[in-house]
Amino acid sequence: MKNAENGTRLIVAASDIDADMLYATKFWAGDPFIFLEQNGKRTIVLSDLEMDRGRRTAKVDEFVSFNQLEREVQGKAKQAPPYEKVLAHFLSKRGVKSAFVPANFQLGYARELAKNDVDLAMTNGLFWPEREAKTDAELKLIGRALRITETGLARAMEVLKASKPAGRKLRWSGKTLTSEMLRAEIDSAMLRAGGTPTNTIVAGGDQACDPHERGFGPLYANSLIILDIFPRDTKTGYWGDMTRTVVRGQANDAQRKLWEAVKEGQELALREIRAGIDGMKIHKAIQALFKKRGYPTEVRKGKNVGFFHGTGHGLGLEIHEYPRLQKVTLKDRQVLTVEPGLYYPGLGGVRHEDVVVVTTTGCKILSRFPKQLEI
Amino acid sequence: MKNAENGTRLIVAASDIDADMLYATKFWAGDPFIFLEQNGKRTIVLSDLEMDRGRRTAKVDEFVSFNQLEREVQGKAKQAPPYEKVLAHFLSKRGVKSAFVPANFQLGYARELAKNDVDLAMTNGLFWPEREAKTDAELKLIGRALRITETGLARAMEVLKASKPAGRKLRWSGKTLTSEMLRAEIDSAMLRAGGTPTNTIVAGGDQACDPHERGFGPLYANSLIILDIFPRDTKTGYWGDMTRTVVRGQANDAQRKLWEAVKEGQELALREIRAGIDGMKIHKAIQALFKKRGYPTEVRKGKNVGFFHGTGHGLGLEIHEYPRLQKVTLKDRQVLTVEPGLYYPGLGGVRHEDVVVVTTTGCKILSRFPKQLEI
Repeated sequence: MKNAENGTRLIVAASDIDADMLYATKFWAGDPFIFLEQNGKRTIVLSDLEMDRGRRTAKVDEFVSFNQLEREVQGKAKQAPPYEKVLAHFLSKRGVKSAFVPANFQLGYARELAKNDVDLAMTNGLFWPEREAKTDAELKLIGRALRITETGLARAMEVLKASKPAGRKLRWSGKTLTSEMLRAEIDSAMLRAGGTPTNTIVAGGDQACDPHERGFGPLYANSLIILDIFPRDTKTGYWGDMTRTVVRGQANDAQRKLWEAVKEGQELALREIRAGIDGMKIHKAIQALFKKRGYPTEVRKGKNVGFFHGTGHGLGLEIHEYPRLQKVTLKDRQVLTVEPGLYYPGLGGVRHEDVVVVTTTGCKILSRFPKQLEI
Repeated sequence: MKNAENGTRLIVAASDIDADMLYATKFWAGDPFIFLEQNGKRTIVLSDLEMDRGRRTAKVDEFVSFNQLEREVQGKAKQAPPYEKVLAHFLSKRGVKSAFVPANFQLGYARELAKNDVDLAMTNGLFWPEREAKTDAELKLIGRALRITETGLARAMEVLKASKPAGRKLRWSGKTLTSEMLRAEIDSAMLRAGGTPTNTIVAGGDQACDPHERGFGPLYANSLIILDIFPRDTKTGYWGDMTRTVVRGQANDAQRKLWEAVKEGQELALREIRAGIDGMKIHKAIQALFKKRGYPTEVRKGKNVGFFHGTGHGLGLEIHEYPRLQKVTLKDRQVLTVEPGLYYPGLGGVRHEDVVVVTTTGCKILSRFPKQLEI
């Protein structure tokens, strides 16, 4: 493990879907490429097709042609060699006998490297530990992603306000307003603002009681609607993530009481969060508060009800990144979502979600959008 | 390898980004989950949060609660166990001593399973070989994805037609028309049609000479503009992929000649494609035709010019899936893009891309959209 101890690091992945690779290179690519950090020098291996774009945008020290390496391996063979053989050839040329790789390193590559006596080690914990504490520059980029998110929320409110009840269903623009239509409106607004929308949740009534349900079909007046919006900034790769819960029309007392309880739960978390506190303590305090308000977390008819998901998660170049709020002692500069919710079939679901950065004395809320029950 | 020989198959991945998992389960999830096929029975292990949605939409035989397994591993420990320990526990309960996994199986999981004496084998070639030959049902879904793509192309033509030259730049809706604006219009149209847009290319002039450049800044009149559009059907996960090249205003002779040559190259491919033919033969024939027309593929000033990328790639649940057209002997029911291009800085780039299904007697073109140089 000599080189690994010297800090040799290897990633082979497509940065479009691998945050560690994007973090390392600031270069977007849909197909896997090679990143090697050796003696402090950062090298990427790109196909000739990617080379010009790479030189313009990747933040690394050296660019190597994959096609050239491929020709060296191919020799006079008729068929081009498989990717992993070219990878092994490159590492051999660079004298790499061991390297740290991320836990999601592909087994197919690892097996080929093992045949070539390259030892792979995994780090304990994060591959880039520095990703956990966000820099000032990163906080700005997360702010940018949240501004995109707020564009989506603003569009949602605009459409809901313009919609009218026709019987129980809402109508908008001459049609029954559906989750799909409202989602397309939200997503289009975020696209125009520079975001890539992903699985935006527009879930009304009992659909919202399944927190991962995206929502489908007609939206109803006087019914709770959860809007959970999490676009990626197309330029930088940082994510926004915010949730608001609304009623178009009039909320009844039960809906209002549920909505207010979740708000109180979120406020509790926002008061308690600071570096050094145990996240689970906050999570349990919210559950206890909800119980006191008449909202126990339990199983009814084989279904979870109450507050049965986590309080929050890390946010950055991944939508769910390390840590889970309730699984760690909080640290300065972690960026976390704070998103308690309550779900009872028959009544509906409520979730309020904002994004904070943890500080030594408390937390700073990075998201901005009013909470209003009735619109 | 007893179980592996019996066909035990294991995937641990998020189906949102892993096509083999989506193919196996038809269930969308953003977080990794476990799929096990053992003695013909297909099981998935889901968190309680995903369970209801899973039961409603996943096409498998059995659902197992991850949280229950987690509690069994955790026992009286304070901290929840890492994911891979729960995975190992599940396989142990099921008596799995060996399994086939995809080449992209995560090394972190593999190492934990090795500690538990579970042998992992990788298939030679595709994990699900049946993904290569598309069924009639899949051809319909790819058609659906292409209809979404065509919605984007139609919106692009509409905006370009409505734009007017102001000096050399195009103006639209009171502003200078940029690649970013036109991309947002294309992407919004596809969102409304049920697609998820991804990295839509709107590249004019010399930007288009880098085939992976998405395009940025003002678009110009009388200049070649490449529109390469590849959304994913949000519902089914199948991809569309089409490219058109246009000039808003008037094309000069050099632009027209380049555009016609690429069209001729594509027509050559569409004539030649059928089951049994060597893809490389087609690729080389196109390059030879281009050379004869005065468009050699070569390096000029350290830059690739001509036709320096592949002729096409497999399309299905992945945007680039097996096979590459020029790397194999074509087979019945493969779905392939056919996308020759020519790129010369100073003049610009042209690419025409359509999607075909290979048949025993030729091919059937699945994409529909006219090719028109000047708009």
